[in-house]
Amino acid sequence: MLSDIDICRSTPLKNISEVAKQAGLHHNEHQPLGQYKSKVSLTSLERLASQQDGKLVVVTAITPTPLGEGKTVTTIGLAQGLAKINQSAMACIRQPSMGPVFGVKGGAAGGGYSQVAPMEQLNLHLTGDIHAVTVAHNLASAAIDARLYHEQREGLEAFEARSGLKALDIDPRRIVWRRVLDHNDRALRMITVGKNEADKTINGFEREDGFDISAASELMAILALTDDLQDLRKRIGRVVLAYNNQGLPLTADDFNVAGAMTVTMKDSIEPTLMQTLEGVPTLIHAGPFANIAHGNSSIIADKVALKLSDFVVTEGGFGSDMGFEKACNIKVKASKKNPDCAVIVATLRGLKANSGLYDLRPGTPLPDSIFNDDQDALIAGFENLKWHINSVKQYQVPTVVAINRFPQDSAQELDALKQMITDFDPSVSVEVSEAFGQGGEGATKLAHAVVKACQKQSEFKPLYHSKQSLEEKLMAVAEVGYGAASISLSPLAKKQLAEFKLHGYNDLSVCLAKTPLSISTEAHVKGAPSQFDVPVRELKLCAGAGFIYALCGNVMTMPGLPDKPAFMSLDIDSKGNIVGLS
Amino acid sequence: MLSDIDICRSTPLKNISEVAKQAGLHHNEHQPLGQYKSKVSLTSLERLASQQDGKLVVVTAITPTPLGEGKTVTTIGLAQGLAKINQSAMACIRQPSMGPVFGVKGGAAGGGYSQVAPMEQLNLHLTGDIHAVTVAHNLASAAIDARLYHEQREGLEAFEARSGLKALDIDPRRIVWRRVLDHNDRALRMITVGKNEADKTINGFEREDGFDISAASELMAILALTDDLQDLRKRIGRVVLAYNNQGLPLTADDFNVAGAMTVTMKDSIEPTLMQTLEGVPTLIHAGPFANIAHGNSSIIADKVALKLSDFVVTEGGFGSDMGFEKACNIKVKASKKNPDCAVIVATLRGLKANSGLYDLRPGTPLPDSIFNDDQDALIAGFENLKWHINSVKQYQVPTVVAINRFPQDSAQELDALKQMITDFDPSVSVEVSEAFGQGGEGATKLAHAVVKACQKQSEFKPLYHSKQSLEEKLMAVAEVGYGAASISLSPLAKKQLAEFKLHGYNDLSVCLAKTPLSISTEAHVKGAPSQFDVPVRELKLCAGAGFIYALCGNVMTMPGLPDKPAFMSLDIDSKGNIVGLS
Repeated sequence: MLSDIDICRSTPLKNISEVAKQAGLHHNEHQPLGQYKSKVSLTSLERLASQQDGKLVVVTAITPTPLGEGKTVTTIGLAQGLAKINQSAMACIRQPSMGPVFGVKGGAAGGGYSQVAPMEQLNLHLTGDIHAVTVAHNLASAAIDARLYHEQREGLEAFEARSGLKALDIDPRRIVWRRVLDHNDRALRMITVGKNEADKTINGFEREDGFDISAASELMAILALTDDLQDLRKRIGRVVLAYNNQGLPLTADDFNVAGAMTVTMKDSIEPTLMQTLEGVPTLIHAGPFANIAHGNSSIIADKVALKLSDFVVTEGGFGSDMGFEKACNIKVKASKKNPDCAVIVATLRGLKANSGLYDLRPGTPLPDSIFNDDQDALIAGFENLKWHINSVKQYQVPTVVAINRFPQDSAQELDALKQMITDFDPSVSVEVSEAFGQGGEGATKLAHAVVKACQKQSEFKPLYHSKQSLEEKLMAVAEVGYGAASISLSPLAKKQLAEFKLHGYNDLSVCLAKTPLSISTEAHVKGAPSQFDVPVRELKLCAGAGFIYALCGNVMTMPGLPDKPAFMSLDIDSKGNIVGLS
Repeated sequence: MLSDIDICRSTPLKNISEVAKQAGLHHNEHQPLGQYKSKVSLTSLERLASQQDGKLVVVTAITPTPLGEGKTVTTIGLAQGLAKINQSAMACIRQPSMGPVFGVKGGAAGGGYSQVAPMEQLNLHLTGDIHAVTVAHNLASAAIDARLYHEQREGLEAFEARSGLKALDIDPRRIVWRRVLDHNDRALRMITVGKNEADKTINGFEREDGFDISAASELMAILALTDDLQDLRKRIGRVVLAYNNQGLPLTADDFNVAGAMTVTMKDSIEPTLMQTLEGVPTLIHAGPFANIAHGNSSIIADKVALKLSDFVVTEGGFGSDMGFEKACNIKVKASKKNPDCAVIVATLRGLKANSGLYDLRPGTPLPDSIFNDDQDALIAGFENLKWHINSVKQYQVPTVVAINRFPQDSAQELDALKQMITDFDPSVSVEVSEAFGQGGEGATKLAHAVVKACQKQSEFKPLYHSKQSLEEKLMAVAEVGYGAASISLSPLAKKQLAEFKLHGYNDLSVCLAKTPLSISTEAHVKGAPSQFDVPVRELKLCAGAGFIYALCGNVMTMPGLPDKPAFMSLDIDSKGNIVGLS
């Protein structure tokens, strides 16, 4: 089979204006940026306000291996499959971060014959939205350090008298806004800024700081959760950057920087329209992490797509304990639109890995044995799929399992898995998806199953409500959502909860940040653990995004590069084409 | 008079496809990004190869005040003036850095009725080229720290045996590639990276580092000096990132990262077509600093514009000792196209400031007295203009002085200045430009003078040739170019020169990095100093850009924010329009 980039390059694409027209956008409702990308104006939502919403299909997965289980392939393939069976369909996916493109994971355009195209444009820069987030985020950082510097150097009273500004009296130990870059760069995780041994007065105030990857910026979560520019402005204004020496929060509005941050992100609020290899309109928008943020594509993109088409296929990052839980409890709270159907992506490979009998790592070749029939491993790993089916069903959302087929998978083992699913829960449909190798044609059965599931009445039920206490919300996710035996708050976490309540943040959602590689908080625990504790080390306030995230175990917000990163194979050839992108 | 952004917003603009057509581009030679910007393909150069080049007009200035003397206004105004007198003209300017937009200086789109439009798009993100430079630059930084980490952690032999890569054996004290961000952020000037007191093995190797503003990246200089994608690839491959423990340079090619850096910058190689408020086609491309780099818009943009129009107006940063010198000695070496005419922008305000009798600072209001007739100050400050006229004439380029008129300037004083110039050198034309208040109509006299000057035979002569020694080149710029009495190399600089020679870098150009606020290396020395020394503290190698820059005095490569930065007035209004941008 051809490489992803070769498949993409050999597939004729439509001009994006044609795709937009086909999707039902008027020509003045989008701005083409070159031939294959177009920024969609939010004015389209005004025109379409009275239109009924389509069905929202959220693609989730079993507990993934570090290699991923093909969720984006299935998302794009399903949208193509729906189009093949003559349904009006769109896909909504997140913008890939460039860090992983250069690091281990590669791109995030899907793969094989189920890709968003042109994949090199999707994976590199796209229309600059992540860059806008990076700039806006670091503008706030520069604002904090500049203000600290000027107030400290001059003294608060003198500063006030001369500048006419109210001193913020920043506590330099409680600056909670780190910096960001869209790179995998471990050396920036913990840094000291403002250094100058020779002259302490010129480079600012020396303090400990660090960089996260841009996808981990609260602004990225905000971009995915906002519904218009004025709401974006308000949310950014509420973001807490630091605390003052009286222990009170200092927001972006307090620093007079929220307006400029919004201006910087003004264009990024518009989703980017692209197409799949089969010409299905696809919106790309925002790219929040699925651990310290909610890991779903944007509410704005969903809204536009739901007005334009009968079926909108989107995805939540990692397994159903991660992106799907957050889609149901964080995203729905802001969007008021719940999933009409959940698709759980499973692979034979991934289930066997969940048996604990295989250890799959990026950068090391797969053991051949994992593609041989191995009933024991499949039965053991199936516990994980059962767990995810139950997890999704507790939201009362109709459920379809999509088995994403790899070329090496045996028909016999695929049949065995289908039977196991049907035996476990006859109300759950299951289909094999061959979207990677066959595009939409390989996903028509899955598409039919999804159409059927969407006809069921969804009686959506989240795990908690705004007015419950933050502790109750954390317990709901850990004990009901994950099925954990207990949740333990560290003394620091308890202290922080009390402070958040005091400052009026009780109504926020909660976002548990844990490893995606296990249902528990420990990556090595495979399958379907139950007797485990969820230890909460520390809480972080995202007042603009509208949630508090809880650090449970080690959560990496700035990845590192391996010794042979993906960037080593990237280059241009003699004709100026990009080679080595996957 | 209206504010810049209000003038810009109330001026009807043409669709960029119309501007491109008018400029002579075929529709398949550019890619519109929205209605008002278009990326120009380098294929246009192939089609137009046999076309004769137009005249290259380089706008420079007297020694500027920190407020600037209106060089961009004059550049845009002159292009509009040329169009008014029915000449085919284009302007080529640099992309503004966002750091200064948020800091003190504000935007860099020109001003009044001589602006590039839409100014908010020019000043914010544009088409993402600076972001691409930032990403490519920091990718190299991440590559360095990752390689250092893996080699150090594992040991060189074990690293080689396992990875199959040759160990680079990086000297951690000689990593010469700093990081960059497009912000004014003094706290990032000097930082420590790779910190982790608790576990020294996970966040990389702890070392001193720092950030410069993206305009100071060598990649930005390369973007401005390259002529196609393959040349860009080769130049990036040559960039020296660090030295090994044997003292030998390690390039981006040695780190296997040059291909990915080029891929990241692939689209940025195309200039962005925009228009002035009067519809004159303008190319925006690259934005190198005019101290540690050459401070001119790109060779690619010039080349395209020279094929498309009879007159191309471009500018070099700061006074003629800075951007114009570098245009003649660095840029011409790469482009093989010398200026056909130089325009020196002078203001009454700037000349009086050069008398040393006024102290103008950004953020503090101008003293009213500077607009009163003050013959003494004008006569004293005129020495500076004389210096710049002589400076330009040594390149044997026909010269026009443009007096950029402020509304408060008196006709009497303007006449006096004109007379002084004519008395000093009758071969130099002089015209008052009212481009700010009147657009092209205010620059028609200047345009006529430029057309006439371009008819003269230019017998261009640079200050030095490649084969001279690096010391001789430095002396040529300091002693001939600046008219300094001497140049002194520090022991470090001498050691570095010997090393550069040893490593085969003798043929590079030299780039003196000094304050732009004086002809000398000390900002407070106004007028036309002569008996001064140029002390060279340290040299920096830009092997990809093709020059060695010499740090003479304090040169800031990462600006800081003032206590009331420009970002404080930036916001969106209730209709979603940007307010407060200047």
